Amino acid sequence: MEIRPIAYYRGPLTEKFGTPRQAGLVPDLAGTVEFCEGFEPAMLDGLEGFDYIWLIWGFSMNNPDAAPSSKVRPPRLGGNEKMGVFATRSPYRPNPLGLSSVRLAGIDAAAGRLQVLGADLVDGTPIYDIKPYIVYADSHPDARSGFASEAPGKALKVVWEDPSVRDENLEAILSLDPRPAYHDDPSRIYGLTYNGRNIRFRIAGNVLTVLRD
Amino acid sequence: MEIRPIAYYRGPLTEKFGTPRQAGLVPDLAGTVEFCEGFEPAMLDGLEGFDYIWLIWGFSMNNPDAAPSSKVRPPRLGGNEKMGVFATRSPYRPNPLGLSSVRLAGIDAAAGRLQVLGADLVDGTPIYDIKPYIVYADSHPDARSGFASEAPGKALKVVWEDPSVRDENLEAILSLDPRPAYHDDPSRIYGLTYNGRNIRFRIAGNVLTVLRD
Repeated sequence: MEIRPIAYYRGPLTEKFGTPRQAGLVPDLAGTVEFCEGFEPAMLDGLEGFDYIWLIWGFSMNNPDAAPSSKVRPPRLGGNEKMGVFATRSPYRPNPLGLSSVRLAGIDAAAGRLQVLGADLVDGTPIYDIKPYIVYADSHPDARSGFASEAPGKALKVVWEDPSVRDENLEAILSLDPRPAYHDDPSRIYGLTYNGRNIRFRIAGNVLTVLRD
Repeated sequence: MEIRPIAYYRGPLTEKFGTPRQAGLVPDLAGTVEFCEGFEPAMLDGLEGFDYIWLIWGFSMNNPDAAPSSKVRPPRLGGNEKMGVFATRSPYRPNPLGLSSVRLAGIDAAAGRLQVLGADLVDGTPIYDIKPYIVYADSHPDARSGFASEAPGKALKVVWEDPSVRDENLEAILSLDPRPAYHDDPSRIYGLTYNGRNIRFRIAGNVLTVLRD
């Protein structure tokens, strides 16, 4: 089946590194869904009654040279343990489709734009479908969730060398520890782009220090 | 993006008519997910820790001649009111992808088969992805759900002319009232196929009578 983007996500993060690994981990992280050709404002009629929407999207940042694999190493398991790809939300799956429930914070139908909160998406991610979140069909609060039974906690304390540039959502992103599991080098300087700003930081023990520009 | 089925659903219902309109409405309705070429048993390692899985599937029973439309008439609204397609779970959407959370009742990795409960799928439905249901990311029990805030109740009382053929799941299916909203003709005889059996019934008022073979 051939599917085409109906919209693109626009958000503050432009690389996989640093982007939250599941929806809702940084609940107030704001982004926009921008519809593309074929959109009509009437397609959103009634959506205002829903607090959450589903996004079905494409893992557009995958390395095209990555060999397909039946098993993957979820970051949640420290990168040491392998799980079957269908037991994980790994980007590297037979069809590279992602699924995220995000909070619907605003609708601008005339402009073809939705404001959403808590997305785990990189800026520019193509979106293939949007569906309303229906509690009776979609919510199973007591379901066992295997190795992902608990939301990852704030792993790191974040210290700002220049407190005047502190940003709460960026701090929440950094506190989740964006490093690959096997990294532990306090001298290494990491970088990411957030809302166009170049952010550099170091991690020693459980303290992440955001460096002065 | 080109996506290919990874599996097909096998279940007792072979037509849209009668198939539950959302996952979980007939919670014990049993079906099977059968993986196809490319499957390896290791792809399921770790899935046994999850109570629910997501299926991303294709609306393969859509009428290919149906004109695309920005607004649809959800059966929940009696077929009279129109909603924007992205505010509904209608099959007729820009990319005909469906999304269902189903209970995982069994795994036969060697045979490439999952037993699932509560699916809202027609036999033969192509499945494009399977993901574990992760409560912290996917469950929002208090979310407002617009026009679908309440699960549809059992609309009809089911009477069996031959009680010896009674089937609880079929009774649950029929009690949801499979008729299109605008039908109300007590003399009309409806039919569907359930587990290969030809089922015929009539509806008068709020009583559905399953006719003797």
